[in-house]
Amino acid sequence: MIISPERLRALTEGLVAALGTPADLAQIVAEGLVEANLAGHDSHGVLRLPWYARQIRDGRIRPAARPELLSVSGATARVDGHLGWGPPAAWLATEAALDRARACGVGAATLLRGNHIGRVGAYVERLARAGMVGMALCNASPAVAPFGGTGRLLGTNPFAMAAPGDPPMVLDFATSAVAEGKLRVAVAAGQQVGPGLLRDAAGRPTQDPRDFYAGGALETFGLHKGSGMSVMIELLARGLAGVDHTAPEPGGFNGTLILALDVGSFVPPELFMAAAERLAAQVAARPPIEGVGRVLLPGEPEQLVRKQRLAEGIPLAEPIWAELCQLALELGVAV
Amino acid sequence: MIISPERLRALTEGLVAALGTPADLAQIVAEGLVEANLAGHDSHGVLRLPWYARQIRDGRIRPAARPELLSVSGATARVDGHLGWGPPAAWLATEAALDRARACGVGAATLLRGNHIGRVGAYVERLARAGMVGMALCNASPAVAPFGGTGRLLGTNPFAMAAPGDPPMVLDFATSAVAEGKLRVAVAAGQQVGPGLLRDAAGRPTQDPRDFYAGGALETFGLHKGSGMSVMIELLARGLAGVDHTAPEPGGFNGTLILALDVGSFVPPELFMAAAERLAAQVAARPPIEGVGRVLLPGEPEQLVRKQRLAEGIPLAEPIWAELCQLALELGVAV
Repeated sequence: MIISPERLRALTEGLVAALGTPADLAQIVAEGLVEANLAGHDSHGVLRLPWYARQIRDGRIRPAARPELLSVSGATARVDGHLGWGPPAAWLATEAALDRARACGVGAATLLRGNHIGRVGAYVERLARAGMVGMALCNASPAVAPFGGTGRLLGTNPFAMAAPGDPPMVLDFATSAVAEGKLRVAVAAGQQVGPGLLRDAAGRPTQDPRDFYAGGALETFGLHKGSGMSVMIELLARGLAGVDHTAPEPGGFNGTLILALDVGSFVPPELFMAAAERLAAQVAARPPIEGVGRVLLPGEPEQLVRKQRLAEGIPLAEPIWAELCQLALELGVAV
Repeated sequence: MIISPERLRALTEGLVAALGTPADLAQIVAEGLVEANLAGHDSHGVLRLPWYARQIRDGRIRPAARPELLSVSGATARVDGHLGWGPPAAWLATEAALDRARACGVGAATLLRGNHIGRVGAYVERLARAGMVGMALCNASPAVAPFGGTGRLLGTNPFAMAAPGDPPMVLDFATSAVAEGKLRVAVAAGQQVGPGLLRDAAGRPTQDPRDFYAGGALETFGLHKGSGMSVMIELLARGLAGVDHTAPEPGGFNGTLILALDVGSFVPPELFMAAAERLAAQVAARPPIEGVGRVLLPGEPEQLVRKQRLAEGIPLAEPIWAELCQLALELGVAV
């Protein structure tokens, strides 16, 4: 099933609106989901819609809630998502960080009660396109064991950085060794996964993705280094956002920290851009190892997929399309 | 050879001073080196002294140069190390970031012409002990291949984060898969190293550490994710500090970015501390996997070694001690 970005965006917007979301917020949510699909990050694309719909029915996401800028002071800003959709809240925090960085050279915004904010790379890329170095980190629901330990304690805790350039370099990754979405795909296909990605409920290494759903846990990427990042992100994202760990509300578990550094407050922007271009050229010029066509820059895989999908349409697996059609039927939205 | 921290500090201070360093700067440099040894990071401890001495003779480090606060504006500050010793310059940048964060809630300081700043964890730990979330990143001389590529392009580009707590969590790692210092040790001992750490000059995986010194390159940690971090750090550290890539001076290759976020500007500090304590307890309480005694927190390995070495003294390999004695002889310093 191949669908055009325009059609997928219209359908998604219709579905999100039919779930009780005001039109302006529905547009933001739909844009983010389709952009994730365009970037090749299908795990953060429209396949999330049935999951979001369930969270709305469970009262975890309040679709009509609007995020609020709680405070602005010096280089800092704080946003409360009021348990609404994540993306509008994260965009508000991104714009607040940008605004503070324009005023002070650096800006930092936190978000609490923000639910799932979607693909984190989108926010830092926005900052990079505004002449800022962007950085973002957020915690997520427990799914990952710390290095050397067993059981689910940490989230997949993504980390993202972006810098101005043409195009901007955009780094965005989960600190888990693998995305949970990939395990779902492997289970559905009856396949094993690679080694070093997960452990079973007893803490033994396994390549059977079903073991994750039977009480297992994901490993972090990068051994003790990635695990340390995940622990720090867990603390910073929740701690600075002020997530109340003693009485976590559904939907209020996640915290986000977004940082913006105005390049021009440190160096002439053209000097930074020249450094970015030079490094990009140096990376691209490295002779590749055997089996690799070309060394890619942070964000380049996404750019390549985006170009292709803009031209050829977005491929959707049949089960995902069927789920969207089912949801449309339930909500009375024309497909 | 076991030496007391006091004796090693006095000897190091004497050596650094004899290299032409003013007494106050020599004290800062010696303190940093001995603290690295105390933390178990011998690769950043006194074994660096002969290497530093060579850089002084080569004119790369100017031992009497004093770092200068170039500018302070809003949340930002810029420090020029004037090609002097790295640690005093990095401490000045750390204090500038702290000062800016006290004023604005967030502070960011860059350092250029700073030479080798030593163990990065020390600076972010200082910020954490002052109630700040600290973050630091810096680039280093080319030694690492980007993921999928061959040859030396990136530095070992360390990344560090710390957060207030009792004790603070301190994360500090090189984005290379292994420290170059460990290869040196393996070569000297005639040993192989583990898989996945380095490639030879032709880009083939190898476990022979001598291949690194024959034109090979280190791999990054964490596959494409760690490589992306290394590329971003290379760009941010140099780009924001304003390292002139077109005419790099010896000693002026490295850039550093230090960030401080004042916890109290976001949330009541006691709330953050409670979150830190709770997470630390949760991590420590995870049942370990087979073969692991206990799950450790970021910074805990260093705390354990420090406690032991404060009590029992600092072990130094005989060749390192011999090199220090030789340097002392050359400089007329009593051992």
